Amino acid sequence: MATLLKGKEVVEALNEKMIEDVTALKAKGVTPTLAILRVGERADDISYEKGAIKRCELVGVEARVFALPADVSEEDFFAKLQELNEDITIHGILMFRPLPKHINEEKARKLLSPSKDIDGCTDISLAGVFTGNNEGFAPCTAEAAVEILKYYNIPLSGKKITVIGRSLVIGRPVAMMLMHENATVTICHTRTVDVPAEAKDADILVVASGQMESVGAEYLRPGQVVIDVGIGWNDKKGKLCGDVKFDEAEPIVDAITPVPGGVGGVTTSILVKHVVEAAKKL
Amino acid sequence: MATLLKGKEVVEALNEKMIEDVTALKAKGVTPTLAILRVGERADDISYEKGAIKRCELVGVEARVFALPADVSEEDFFAKLQELNEDITIHGILMFRPLPKHINEEKARKLLSPSKDIDGCTDISLAGVFTGNNEGFAPCTAEAAVEILKYYNIPLSGKKITVIGRSLVIGRPVAMMLMHENATVTICHTRTVDVPAEAKDADILVVASGQMESVGAEYLRPGQVVIDVGIGWNDKKGKLCGDVKFDEAEPIVDAITPVPGGVGGVTTSILVKHVVEAAKKL
Repeated sequence: MATLLKGKEVVEALNEKMIEDVTALKAKGVTPTLAILRVGERADDISYEKGAIKRCELVGVEARVFALPADVSEEDFFAKLQELNEDITIHGILMFRPLPKHINEEKARKLLSPSKDIDGCTDISLAGVFTGNNEGFAPCTAEAAVEILKYYNIPLSGKKITVIGRSLVIGRPVAMMLMHENATVTICHTRTVDVPAEAKDADILVVASGQMESVGAEYLRPGQVVIDVGIGWNDKKGKLCGDVKFDEAEPIVDAITPVPGGVGGVTTSILVKHVVEAAKKL
Repeated sequence: MATLLKGKEVVEALNEKMIEDVTALKAKGVTPTLAILRVGERADDISYEKGAIKRCELVGVEARVFALPADVSEEDFFAKLQELNEDITIHGILMFRPLPKHINEEKARKLLSPSKDIDGCTDISLAGVFTGNNEGFAPCTAEAAVEILKYYNIPLSGKKITVIGRSLVIGRPVAMMLMHENATVTICHTRTVDVPAEAKDADILVVASGQMESVGAEYLRPGQVVIDVGIGWNDKKGKLCGDVKFDEAEPIVDAITPVPGGVGGVTTSILVKHVVEAAKKL
């Protein structure tokens, strides 16, 4: 029986700290405020938005939604983004991506103010993750994975960690952040020849392949800690599943994050934490 | 007997292409120009400077040295850097580092114009290496290591590569650049528990530990390709040596860069190539 690395406990610890910080900020007349910039009505975005608003309310952070129609002109979109950049009552901007194809996402990424980039997509934030100088904010999912490992006191220094996936929102940043914690990190991806061997070789496995239930027993061995970053609806099973075959993994490994109830909720907390940090930096 | 991956051939191929590019630029009235910004008279800097000037001359790039006294005030240093940023006849700036302690290096890094940052130290350049969007310029030594592998047609996609060292000038950027070439990369460093095992496991080994002759037979196996990024004067042997024990490695591995005559010379060529590219971008 593996230890379940539940997100709930991590979230509670984060909330407690945030409530303290928000109280101190409000005493100074500052209400940490998140702007959510959404184009269209994509179900994934709205679901994440709901969770973020709820989490904000819980700790006293204000959330304002700026929802633009799916066919908003590029000009109007950039005008709104610029307005949010300049609005001193807003401390963090969550810009849902991907943007519709008629809006230049690279241009949007460059326009977003790095000081309000609470989901780590600007060059300054990414350079901060790469250099480890902690400028800007890391992508929330990557930081959530690291936060869970730290909360449960899982040693990282000198440990072998295999990351499956090399996206800019999770694989690459989490690899760098774990390397800054002195782990020896290997990054696997679709062109890696023998992913199961690389996975089995690791003390800690971070799975962000984006392939539902793709990691089974052949990737695992006793003693390992598994962080499952994936989440998606499994039609066959009629439930949410991660990138790991939980039923195969759980009897083998030492510890594993459940899906749901693992990384996802912590990601939202990290987002809100970044808003509070952005407000504190002012 | 290992194949020697000599830098000379790579340099010649790079020079040939650069001469073409410079000729085309000069026909348009543009002389690609490198500014070398040096504080004090450190022997390493002056030696690198001499090599860079010679390489510039060879391909028709102009090199101008701006040497400031070791006790230059921070204000005067930043004024000079700003002047070079704004000078439209200058396309690339090589700012020798480390800067003296009384000059804020982080501030200098932020001031340097990313479009002239031909040795990849600004956030834009580092974010470009991390994202793989090729904005800015990669650190020259990291690009030199990749260039050698490509010149000698060493397959990278799907190959296991171990990088020893995680500095921002070589270890980290070369790891990212090789990952963008679809290699499966592991980054080792001083806190890695079993570096020899990680090294032996790799198809390609990039050694940038900064520890002279630290990598011997126990790190190596037949079939490997070794890129030795180190270079330093070995007092005992009375000659330049790399981070690899060449005499031990050469009989074991398939291919290896010599020191001197390997990565070093290619690094200077990449520097000059970046100046030409910066001039072409205008």
